[in-house]
Amino acid sequence: MPVIRERTLLGPGPTNPYPEATAALGLPLLGHLDPEFLRIMDEACDRLRMVWGTTNARTLPLSATGSAGMEAAFVNTVHEGDVVVVAVNGLFGQRMCDVAARCGAEVIEVDHPWGTPVDVDRVLSAHKSPRIIAVVHAETSTGVRSDIAGLGAGKGDALLVTDAVTSIAGIELRADDWGVDVGYAGTQKCLGVAPGLAPFTVNDRAFDRRVVRPRSWYLDLGLLGGYVGEASGSGGRTYHHTAPTAMVASLNAGLGRILEEGLEAVWARHEEAGRILQNGLEEMGLELFAEKGARLPELTTVKVPEGVDSAAVRNVLLERHGIEIGAGAGPYAATVWRIGLMGPNARPDRALLALVALRDALEVVGRA
Amino acid sequence: MPVIRERTLLGPGPTNPYPEATAALGLPLLGHLDPEFLRIMDEACDRLRMVWGTTNARTLPLSATGSAGMEAAFVNTVHEGDVVVVAVNGLFGQRMCDVAARCGAEVIEVDHPWGTPVDVDRVLSAHKSPRIIAVVHAETSTGVRSDIAGLGAGKGDALLVTDAVTSIAGIELRADDWGVDVGYAGTQKCLGVAPGLAPFTVNDRAFDRRVVRPRSWYLDLGLLGGYVGEASGSGGRTYHHTAPTAMVASLNAGLGRILEEGLEAVWARHEEAGRILQNGLEEMGLELFAEKGARLPELTTVKVPEGVDSAAVRNVLLERHGIEIGAGAGPYAATVWRIGLMGPNARPDRALLALVALRDALEVVGRA
Repeated sequence: MPVIRERTLLGPGPTNPYPEATAALGLPLLGHLDPEFLRIMDEACDRLRMVWGTTNARTLPLSATGSAGMEAAFVNTVHEGDVVVVAVNGLFGQRMCDVAARCGAEVIEVDHPWGTPVDVDRVLSAHKSPRIIAVVHAETSTGVRSDIAGLGAGKGDALLVTDAVTSIAGIELRADDWGVDVGYAGTQKCLGVAPGLAPFTVNDRAFDRRVVRPRSWYLDLGLLGGYVGEASGSGGRTYHHTAPTAMVASLNAGLGRILEEGLEAVWARHEEAGRILQNGLEEMGLELFAEKGARLPELTTVKVPEGVDSAAVRNVLLERHGIEIGAGAGPYAATVWRIGLMGPNARPDRALLALVALRDALEVVGRA
Repeated sequence: MPVIRERTLLGPGPTNPYPEATAALGLPLLGHLDPEFLRIMDEACDRLRMVWGTTNARTLPLSATGSAGMEAAFVNTVHEGDVVVVAVNGLFGQRMCDVAARCGAEVIEVDHPWGTPVDVDRVLSAHKSPRIIAVVHAETSTGVRSDIAGLGAGKGDALLVTDAVTSIAGIELRADDWGVDVGYAGTQKCLGVAPGLAPFTVNDRAFDRRVVRPRSWYLDLGLLGGYVGEASGSGGRTYHHTAPTAMVASLNAGLGRILEEGLEAVWARHEEAGRILQNGLEEMGLELFAEKGARLPELTTVKVPEGVDSAAVRNVLLERHGIEIGAGAGPYAATVWRIGLMGPNARPDRALLALVALRDALEVVGRA
């Protein structure tokens, strides 16, 4: 067996999981129809409702990664030729355009400079009556937070599709209060669970307008309801596919950890860690990339100083400190770093670790 | 924390994982771009080629369960209106018809009685020039093995799509020799890994005919190639989605365990365990469901004796012995049991355990 590497994962995700989530992966595997597994699945769905801020019956972990959540959102809601307005301020907004178009949408892309939040008025005035408005709550590519509530308040007859991959369990998220009709997320960021599932929620309004028999069988919400026993409310299940039981148990354990601490306390912990990191970076003379006022605490983007080799610094962090941080995304691959403090890593000590290690790496690379 | 349940999983899957696969889930999580993770992913892909019996460069674990593998097979190969001949002899053949039709296929369903293998001549003569012929190698719903090589030899210009979910690493499977163009599988059966990934392989012939920009972004083979670094051959990767790193590490460990034992030895172990179980069931006076000569060793179907409550017996097995076996599928839900001896459970002692526990459960239920 090769040497086991232990990393501190301070990139844009995955983060190190909560210990409870890792421990659950090692428990004896259960069958997907075992009464004990069904209890775990039900509990996980209940807990997901709490972190989403929703009472939606149709709230479940899809059996694939967050990107499949995006696909599920569009494949179930876009009817051929539907107008879909997409607010784009980074890579994941761009991806929404691609995914929606593949589902048959007429996409209206409302572009924003990367690093800035979505302009609610521009998005709402992009078309007089779109069927869907889609937005990324926390852009993983830029570290920016956008205003979901504003879009929800002005959406009119449109459905509001929200990407909460990097926001869920990290910053305030209130799907019902904000008017989110369809939401998807990932497990590997602030939820502090390994990647592999896509927490998903859809309200009755969106479900009633869904595509019956969508192109995707695997992500068909009409079939997935039975999978989590929504119809009966008392455990009646329809076999759809074999649930990834280990991952669901791990998600449930991670959620349990978060709710035991208290969701608002967890948000506050992310807020504090991000503030320490961002203040410290500025004190080091580095420039933050995301616009002030719209910065995510859980994912900080910082400009690579002029003349510094981004990859060399990341390599020193990885090899010398065992710390992973992220390169920038898309056009900023070589000029921005992304530093995540998510889930169990949303702590002051991890923020300080990132700062001292980055300072050291800059010195090492500078000396080279 | 609730009491932890430990089950012996002798149903149609998931099986108990190989200990190496479970141990890998508990190792420190790696990022999806970590050089060490990329090494693990490359190794897993190499090992998958060996269990598939293929040299296909495009062999990888899709980041979803086996059912998504089925979807990936069709969404990438079915052009609108293509004639797809599907050999149906159970639930998963039926599902292929549904999935292919959603992808725009004109489906020609060649039905067989459940419990019998696919009739190669009937399938090959169902249409003069289908674009695709699709077949399930090992029908999980019935415990039947079908002849893939025969279909491959006669497929002509068609692509051969093969479901190997329950056959891979359990019985002989030689994708290249048999003419399989597209194959998909699951991790939770004979591979002895938790559910959550879909091992997938596609040859150049099928890839060259693929749908460019298919409806599914998540399962787009044109994008997934870069994800596993196929293009460069030396580790160059394109970000597509966040790989489920814990599950991939677990798969790699399970595959390592299998290949260390030797693939043919693993097949022989499944063969022996299945023979002991099937002989024992017949000695108990029970009747096997699958046709003689086509029975899978890794998944045995047996008729519930007249007058016996199927669910009551399964409950006794679960509650008294901690053993899960499966109900029948579809129309045979209440009249057939499915007993799996897969992965680490493909052992004589597990076969004997199934026999003695079933005998006991029949007595207990009989007494009730």
